[in-house]
Amino acid sequence: MDIRKLVKKEVAGLRAYNAKEIPCRIKLDANESPYGFADAVKAVSGIRTNRYPDPEAKTLRQLLAKDLGVETGNILFGNGSDELIYYLITTFGGPVSYPVPTFSMYGIIGQALGEEKAEVPLDKEFDLDTDTFMDAVRKRKPKLIFLSSPNNPTGNCFSTDRILKVLEASRGIVVVDEAYQPFSSEKGMLPLLKDYRNLVIMRTLSKIGLAALRLGFMIADPGIICEVNKVRLPFNLNALSQAVASAALKRKKEFRASIRTIVSERGRLLEGLARIEGVMPFPSEANFVLLRVDDPDRVYASLLREGILVRNLNDAVKGCLRVTVGTPKENTAFLKALKKIARSSK
Amino acid sequence: MDIRKLVKKEVAGLRAYNAKEIPCRIKLDANESPYGFADAVKAVSGIRTNRYPDPEAKTLRQLLAKDLGVETGNILFGNGSDELIYYLITTFGGPVSYPVPTFSMYGIIGQALGEEKAEVPLDKEFDLDTDTFMDAVRKRKPKLIFLSSPNNPTGNCFSTDRILKVLEASRGIVVVDEAYQPFSSEKGMLPLLKDYRNLVIMRTLSKIGLAALRLGFMIADPGIICEVNKVRLPFNLNALSQAVASAALKRKKEFRASIRTIVSERGRLLEGLARIEGVMPFPSEANFVLLRVDDPDRVYASLLREGILVRNLNDAVKGCLRVTVGTPKENTAFLKALKKIARSSK
Repeated sequence: MDIRKLVKKEVAGLRAYNAKEIPCRIKLDANESPYGFADAVKAVSGIRTNRYPDPEAKTLRQLLAKDLGVETGNILFGNGSDELIYYLITTFGGPVSYPVPTFSMYGIIGQALGEEKAEVPLDKEFDLDTDTFMDAVRKRKPKLIFLSSPNNPTGNCFSTDRILKVLEASRGIVVVDEAYQPFSSEKGMLPLLKDYRNLVIMRTLSKIGLAALRLGFMIADPGIICEVNKVRLPFNLNALSQAVASAALKRKKEFRASIRTIVSERGRLLEGLARIEGVMPFPSEANFVLLRVDDPDRVYASLLREGILVRNLNDAVKGCLRVTVGTPKENTAFLKALKKIARSSK
Repeated sequence: MDIRKLVKKEVAGLRAYNAKEIPCRIKLDANESPYGFADAVKAVSGIRTNRYPDPEAKTLRQLLAKDLGVETGNILFGNGSDELIYYLITTFGGPVSYPVPTFSMYGIIGQALGEEKAEVPLDKEFDLDTDTFMDAVRKRKPKLIFLSSPNNPTGNCFSTDRILKVLEASRGIVVVDEAYQPFSSEKGMLPLLKDYRNLVIMRTLSKIGLAALRLGFMIADPGIICEVNKVRLPFNLNALSQAVASAALKRKKEFRASIRTIVSERGRLLEGLARIEGVMPFPSEANFVLLRVDDPDRVYASLLREGILVRNLNDAVKGCLRVTVGTPKENTAFLKALKKIARSSK
């Protein structure tokens, strides 16, 4: 029996996520926060491990709704935003459209679920190319459009007026993935939620110190939440993550302080990078910086020899690496190492 | 914009899981273990909340592989078995076949993913009706067959020779869901894994004291694991649950003791139920008992008035309730209350 012949053809064509663990001293590859909430894990102490978690995550839901200024019925939780992408595509089907380069999961999950993909290249400033996008919307009639803003891996926000054009032209659902919004100077789409019934906003706790928990959420009209909730696995949010997230969300000062530090360090990183010959950083509204270098494969390998792990994006964005903003010390070490590597290449 | 018109028709026809929380004193409705692992939650203390979890769950994987006597490459983890059902149907597609009555998620997830369902009634002893099942296999050619054994909610194991007949006749994947196997006197299908390349075994930690964690796993030929892994979300298992499960799995004595108590209490429950007039319990190899009563809706409501929550299955299995085995004290209280209710109905 050849198992591969039993598999859906779209799945057969997929490759599993590369989970290779690369040993390093300074980990700047995964857009994690360098700051965690060590104390918040104590919140698990009262949990009865034998009981199923609250399928509605009521405590966490109320905290979050209050923070965001929305109703509890506007929120749906996922085991990370990845799971929300799964649920959205399961609910609405395809075609699934998104600009490229962007977060790879829209395409991977779309393919896993057997849906058509409509990829539209970004313009030269990595902004939405409205003409091409509108054309795709008209011709392919996507059921779902995913816009990551700030966009991973380019780091910029898409222009609000261009996002609005897409929202107005689309007869399907437009998902604005705001995973990196906390690091941005832009407000994001939340204030516009009431004006667009086809708008879904995705957020996550993964970039702001809680990646270990797997906790993403979407904010949308209750009509959308109600439909997506039909395909949600009832106990998708384990009790431990619910408890730790609830405890951490109360520490607003810590959240704000860590975000402030990361944003300030991003500025220092950008300045430092701009001063290194042969390196061109792109502006960033996220907790990472995209940079173009002369020989990305060599620079990536040389950094790793120094114990510094970044993301080599040469496949997706020609000539580019992506570096996560680390602690001040980590960023200094990264800049120093890169300067040395750039110099040695001449 | 009418959101419902955008939704896939199979999803529009679904109802969301009923998450209504019913206050009670004694909770015997969800097939949870009455015994937890309070100490194991301490294992989260070292976790860095800001880092993504190990996508391969290596520590837990090695512990489990050793316990089960399989290779680490035979195991794939899910955020509960529910997620594994999602992944299996995403990977292989439909038709999806299963006997009824059984665990509702096979049908719900199959429908959410837009696949055809082929339901086959069990025989009068709640065993597989091989003739009808073979007929369905020949005619509908299911890509996936789900057999819950011990079966939820009937409590019995299917005859091994009948399961083997299905395995041999099927040209698709046969998933034997052994969520309740730890409570059974039967060995389960694990010893037969090497003989059947199309066999998938599902297990879970949810029934043996760790439902809060959401941790299911499947065991199969690496060829199957490799394909399903393509549709698995890379970080589907949060770091907290990984740590707590790893700590709990080391407490083999506690696991065994709690299972022994539950099995022994199941025996006492069955004897007690058989002695109550108007009540007919079915034999059970699981941590719950199915019972037929004269007026299930009334009995369910009367028990709840006493603070005892069981599952009313009158919709799925006419005349039946399902009660989870609780602590000795809880079981005694349940039997006493049921006796009183049965008497008052005459």
